[in-house]
Amino acid sequence: MGTCQKAKLNKQNLSPSAFIGVEGKDIISFGSGQPDLAPPEEVYHILPDYSDFKYGLIQGMEKLRYALAQQYPNSTADSFVITNGASEALDLSLRVISSLPVKNSKKVLITQPYYYSYPLLVHYAGMEPVSLKTDRGHIDLDDFRKKVKDCRAVIINSPSNPTGRVEVIDTLREIELITSELGVYVISDEVYKDLIYVRENYLIKGPHVVTINSFSKTYAMCGFRVGYLWSLDTQFVQQVIDIKTHSSMNTNILGQEMAFEVTKVPRRFIDDQLKIWQERCNLIYSGLQNLGFDLWKPEGAFYVLPKVPIAKDFVWDMFTKHNIITYLGDWFGSPGRVRFSYALDVQKIEIGLERIEKYLKTR
Amino acid sequence: MGTCQKAKLNKQNLSPSAFIGVEGKDIISFGSGQPDLAPPEEVYHILPDYSDFKYGLIQGMEKLRYALAQQYPNSTADSFVITNGASEALDLSLRVISSLPVKNSKKVLITQPYYYSYPLLVHYAGMEPVSLKTDRGHIDLDDFRKKVKDCRAVIINSPSNPTGRVEVIDTLREIELITSELGVYVISDEVYKDLIYVRENYLIKGPHVVTINSFSKTYAMCGFRVGYLWSLDTQFVQQVIDIKTHSSMNTNILGQEMAFEVTKVPRRFIDDQLKIWQERCNLIYSGLQNLGFDLWKPEGAFYVLPKVPIAKDFVWDMFTKHNIITYLGDWFGSPGRVRFSYALDVQKIEIGLERIEKYLKTR
Repeated sequence: MGTCQKAKLNKQNLSPSAFIGVEGKDIISFGSGQPDLAPPEEVYHILPDYSDFKYGLIQGMEKLRYALAQQYPNSTADSFVITNGASEALDLSLRVISSLPVKNSKKVLITQPYYYSYPLLVHYAGMEPVSLKTDRGHIDLDDFRKKVKDCRAVIINSPSNPTGRVEVIDTLREIELITSELGVYVISDEVYKDLIYVRENYLIKGPHVVTINSFSKTYAMCGFRVGYLWSLDTQFVQQVIDIKTHSSMNTNILGQEMAFEVTKVPRRFIDDQLKIWQERCNLIYSGLQNLGFDLWKPEGAFYVLPKVPIAKDFVWDMFTKHNIITYLGDWFGSPGRVRFSYALDVQKIEIGLERIEKYLKTR
Repeated sequence: MGTCQKAKLNKQNLSPSAFIGVEGKDIISFGSGQPDLAPPEEVYHILPDYSDFKYGLIQGMEKLRYALAQQYPNSTADSFVITNGASEALDLSLRVISSLPVKNSKKVLITQPYYYSYPLLVHYAGMEPVSLKTDRGHIDLDDFRKKVKDCRAVIINSPSNPTGRVEVIDTLREIELITSELGVYVISDEVYKDLIYVRENYLIKGPHVVTINSFSKTYAMCGFRVGYLWSLDTQFVQQVIDIKTHSSMNTNILGQEMAFEVTKVPRRFIDDQLKIWQERCNLIYSGLQNLGFDLWKPEGAFYVLPKVPIAKDFVWDMFTKHNIITYLGDWFGSPGRVRFSYALDVQKIEIGLERIEKYLKTR
């Protein structure tokens, strides 16, 4: 498959989706942003005796939302909508925000570098993304203060894909304060909240906060597409349900049952996984540093975003000559950098680093 | 649950979604549009040994698309996108059509009565629905010719929800011809294609045709949310994938495996089910006629839409006093009528008819 798929790729089209389905036994992929480790086995327990088939509630299974309510402050089952992954939660939230009869322009502030779907989803919803400056992956508060006034929403993503950085808590508190005063919506994409190496997650709160989350990263359930949004703004939640009633109806009932099963998995599962991620993180960070790359210390998620002088050549050559997949920083609004996902076992990371060393020497 | 849910309903809010989750052992529901019969048992065969968890292709599982390609003329696996039910296929198609750099206005022609999601999805996509006249549930071709020129798309739904009518083949051929000449997109929602009592399904074809379908109705898989779209317009298919890449990613991988299993189920399954639907159809049609209702002869799907003088009183009284759920025609653009779904066993249909008779006598 590797060879066949390679034929479809070309140097001018190095988008992440161009690499989907590219596989081969000698290919090492620092590309895809999904855990390689299996989900907790509890996920599959429901399957053998499963016999339901009817529509579920659009908002999502009540027992699943009730279980989530135990994890979020001041919440009830009504504070959640279960969605087709975090992606649909983001899409629906932006569609609702775009439809609000707010006076100001249809601008949405997004940190740059950004998860590549953000600007596109903002556009699809008929709004305009505005770039928020970051310094070494952390938000520039002065820039935030200056730009947020003209926006109807801001997307925060801590821990961040693609930077692997975790936002400073004081910054998040300041953002809570400012957005609350201005009535600006905060879409807080916290899908990596359980993969933080430097502190506990800080849950952003406020009257206009919409938190996006998912079972995909924490429990390695990417393919099942079960995510959710949390908001204490009951009108907002209802507006999301209103759109979803027509745009996709209930999220797959079996995926929701599987997600419900993981809500019963002991916290130990996450702690054990975090140790594995930490080891991989240390390996790739020191490995790339030793090879002379300039990169930020990873604080969460499973990405690093080193500077790479001629990034497009690097991504193309590493793939075509060394069977290594990496993603071009341009796609994340970060030209001159390359994203590495380290969702790989340490042996593969080591082989990957060796191939990069070889490339650097022969270049 | 019946009583508790009833409290939420009121006469001014008789939307179909208000009835979701309303259950009770004495309630007979002519409401929800989903089969009560179980899916073929093959659907569940994959489950006990299932162990995958990773992202799938955004476009959908290749083997499922390949199996579908055997059912559609001139098709390859690339002619399909697997979606979260027919709903997402509709939503994505409309979003793509709205984004096209076409000169004419953003109008979409829809037959009235309509499936209640159509006008809303058209609005959500930033376009404007235009009503197409029907005569006894069949399209008025003169009205079509007059209005289609100003539209960038038309939605055809044969067999129709809520009318239960099947479009005249000559009309469909004429629509193919006119839209092909004008370059107008045809979204043909054929989710009831396997539930036709009067003839074989006529598959609408053409360079700008997008066919919407699903496993929900034919195979009673509503809750699993697996649908698809078919189009020979490769650019259109790619644009749908482009949005879905960000708005929801792949459709649940397990749901797709289950859908793949039903593609192997012998045609006999559909034929056997059709006999059951035909019996129910005859029962409710003659039953309502005998009670004096004015209604069109059902030709497909599992709905009838009789005239009811004071429809809101009827729906409200039947529910609150006789434990019968029906849907107000207003929601389908058909005031003065009430939609009955006959996705119920004959015993329940008979009890339902008896209660209606009682209501008519005591009114």
